Amino acid sequence: MEPVDILIQAGWIIPVVPAGELLVDGAVAVADGRIVALCSREEAARRFRAAETVSLPDHALIPGLVNAHTHAAMTLLRGIADDVPLMEWLNDHIWPREVRWVDAVFVRTGTRLAVAEMLRGGTTCFADMYFFPDAAYEMVRETGIRAALGLIFVDFPTPWARCPEEYLEKNRALLQRFPADDQVQWLLAPHAPYSVGDATFERIAELADHANLRVHLHLHETTQEIHESLDRYGERPLARLERLELVNECLLAAHMVHLTEEEIETVAERGVHVLHCPESNLKLASGFCPVARLADRNAALALGTDGAASNNDLDLIGEMRTAALLAKGVTGDPEALPAARVLEMATLGGAEALHFDHCIGSLEPGKYADIVAIDLGRPETQPCYDPVSQIVYAATREQVTDVWVGGRRLLRERRLTTLDWPALRENVTEWQLRLAQPLEST
Amino acid sequence: MEPVDILIQAGWIIPVVPAGELLVDGAVAVADGRIVALCSREEAARRFRAAETVSLPDHALIPGLVNAHTHAAMTLLRGIADDVPLMEWLNDHIWPREVRWVDAVFVRTGTRLAVAEMLRGGTTCFADMYFFPDAAYEMVRETGIRAALGLIFVDFPTPWARCPEEYLEKNRALLQRFPADDQVQWLLAPHAPYSVGDATFERIAELADHANLRVHLHLHETTQEIHESLDRYGERPLARLERLELVNECLLAAHMVHLTEEEIETVAERGVHVLHCPESNLKLASGFCPVARLADRNAALALGTDGAASNNDLDLIGEMRTAALLAKGVTGDPEALPAARVLEMATLGGAEALHFDHCIGSLEPGKYADIVAIDLGRPETQPCYDPVSQIVYAATREQVTDVWVGGRRLLRERRLTTLDWPALRENVTEWQLRLAQPLEST
Repeated sequence: MEPVDILIQAGWIIPVVPAGELLVDGAVAVADGRIVALCSREEAARRFRAAETVSLPDHALIPGLVNAHTHAAMTLLRGIADDVPLMEWLNDHIWPREVRWVDAVFVRTGTRLAVAEMLRGGTTCFADMYFFPDAAYEMVRETGIRAALGLIFVDFPTPWARCPEEYLEKNRALLQRFPADDQVQWLLAPHAPYSVGDATFERIAELADHANLRVHLHLHETTQEIHESLDRYGERPLARLERLELVNECLLAAHMVHLTEEEIETVAERGVHVLHCPESNLKLASGFCPVARLADRNAALALGTDGAASNNDLDLIGEMRTAALLAKGVTGDPEALPAARVLEMATLGGAEALHFDHCIGSLEPGKYADIVAIDLGRPETQPCYDPVSQIVYAATREQVTDVWVGGRRLLRERRLTTLDWPALRENVTEWQLRLAQPLEST
Repeated sequence: MEPVDILIQAGWIIPVVPAGELLVDGAVAVADGRIVALCSREEAARRFRAAETVSLPDHALIPGLVNAHTHAAMTLLRGIADDVPLMEWLNDHIWPREVRWVDAVFVRTGTRLAVAEMLRGGTTCFADMYFFPDAAYEMVRETGIRAALGLIFVDFPTPWARCPEEYLEKNRALLQRFPADDQVQWLLAPHAPYSVGDATFERIAELADHANLRVHLHLHETTQEIHESLDRYGERPLARLERLELVNECLLAAHMVHLTEEEIETVAERGVHVLHCPESNLKLASGFCPVARLADRNAALALGTDGAASNNDLDLIGEMRTAALLAKGVTGDPEALPAARVLEMATLGGAEALHFDHCIGSLEPGKYADIVAIDLGRPETQPCYDPVSQIVYAATREQVTDVWVGGRRLLRERRLTTLDWPALRENVTEWQLRLAQPLEST
């Protein structure tokens, strides 16, 4: 008998790779944080002697979900201003509060809250883009989640840095001080084509080459962005990035709402990772990303929630459902973006985008045991003819009962093991009182 | 001190009427199943001596949600066939199974499951449309929920009746045998313009007049329905119903996806109740109901989930979110269908459609105590700047902890008090085994 650390028995195992595979009454064996084997419950009983056995007969196991685009600390601004136009939302509500209040303490509290929410919803890895990424880095280490953290660049002063030189300097220093590994990767994160000029993009391209880093930005989110680019540069943002030699498999492009047929072709051919954020695009009325057409061309697709201020949650199970439903509505084709495809986007697709697919994104021997258990035995997901359909079209995040990251059980029967919710809630309430103050008086 | 049965203290009370009102740290006093008063916690402490006091400082209280369009028993077909075209879905998966399997026992089990799910998600009243409405009636009485049950009419044979005369006869008999009251109302439910001929509609119009009943049907759901009507009757379905004198405030029209400007005007002027089902319309790729334009004209709007086979849940909190987000995406206007408007649709709007607004739909003295408590103290809905926004944009159904219908606590700290879930689940599993059989072999 082979000794292993954990044996998880489950009603269904959905490994994502190979595509379409489903183990009924299966087991996952875990040792040293990694998956040793997936097999039938009977075979596991014969083959493994486990230090801990977890029996989940009503549950489906899926790979940890990957939130490919968020601004974690913005959970503190969740719901502070809804149902208002985008520019009013940014200019009158979000940006003034960020300028006034964002610091490392804000980012620590906001990121902790985001990680609490993400783990409770089955997300085990996320791509972040926010100020004070060093504070986010600390929180990722503290909580045990995985992340690809963005080193932010904008061409105007923020609480994080005053000028392009300072952004570059600070980001370089972070790269040296906090080396990447299988838990934390760094991404270069120029905010968007409208907030970053050519000179900064050129430095970013150099740094990306030099340090072998990927580039994460907002792209083609609104028609306004495209019109402004045409006015200012005489080219659409994607064409501008092509000129700057950034359109390749190292580019992570969030939103991609407005795309011509030719641009869809370019994105697919070059292997650009499209980070689809359907709920944010709906809420801010940005438009509909042509995700089904991108999928038809085999473009690299991942799924993100965007920040909680424009969603208003970090719930990838809900986002999968919205993505699958919306693609059908937009195309008029009820076969568009089936459940299994959207689950692949939210797991393997995200891992590929974030350069983590060598070690996560599917349940395969050798990969880390980033595993999510979803209880399908409740009224809301019964009867269960097809667990993949139930997860995407009927389950909600609270049906996630247990989450392992690298074999570490970070959520145990709905309880967070590395976060103290009562203490965190007190901090969140303190921030709420500050942030809710009228802006004039602060 | 005035004696009352229950005093519910809550962090927030959202009565829906008056519109926009929000009580912070309030209390609802309940006696004989009805609301006696809404007031501050302090005033309640001075004024009332309660047999039972429930303290919910982290919760918001809202009126019970009204699911204005569903096919409750179809929960047994949840997820049996997804990601397939509508006609294949109906012809190859749903209808053959209904013909083979649907009987009063199916409807009893399916409706029980639906009621379990609805109560757990804060729905206290629903409009049903399915075969064997007498079986649904029994389940409504048994579980204590409220419903407006549809007396179904179609022009072809089903397990419920063989010919138009038998539908009429059976439905008339039900009306006599099971009188309506404040818990159960009857609706006449001609399935759709394409499944019901003029002769049957004429009889329905007579019966509606005679028995003072409303008429609930599927209308303008797909372009195919409209094209077929033009081919067969030379008029669009709404025009045909106008000719049949059915277009008035007694008409409950589910879906209403495809509407001309003139039709929107007619619907608004005549007081037709539009039962908006955004998730079903997305999943079946039927199109987008112009709900924001209807709202601009002050049309009567309610919200429904449709059946679980095309949604795949009966979750009105999720449906509110989809409705609010989708309206913004479709119009390109981030101010379309704000959170408070969609909450009104899902409560008062539904009560008005179902002819229940004299006694439910808002938290007002004199109305029944149909009350839903939603816990907003969790990571997913913190911080909480605006409880209405949190409920619509961030909460999920599992945050519903307690539900009262007419002062009776049907959900107590997430436990159903009138339904035995383990026993029901066994029945559901038996049905699953039957329904999952290949159709050829049954």
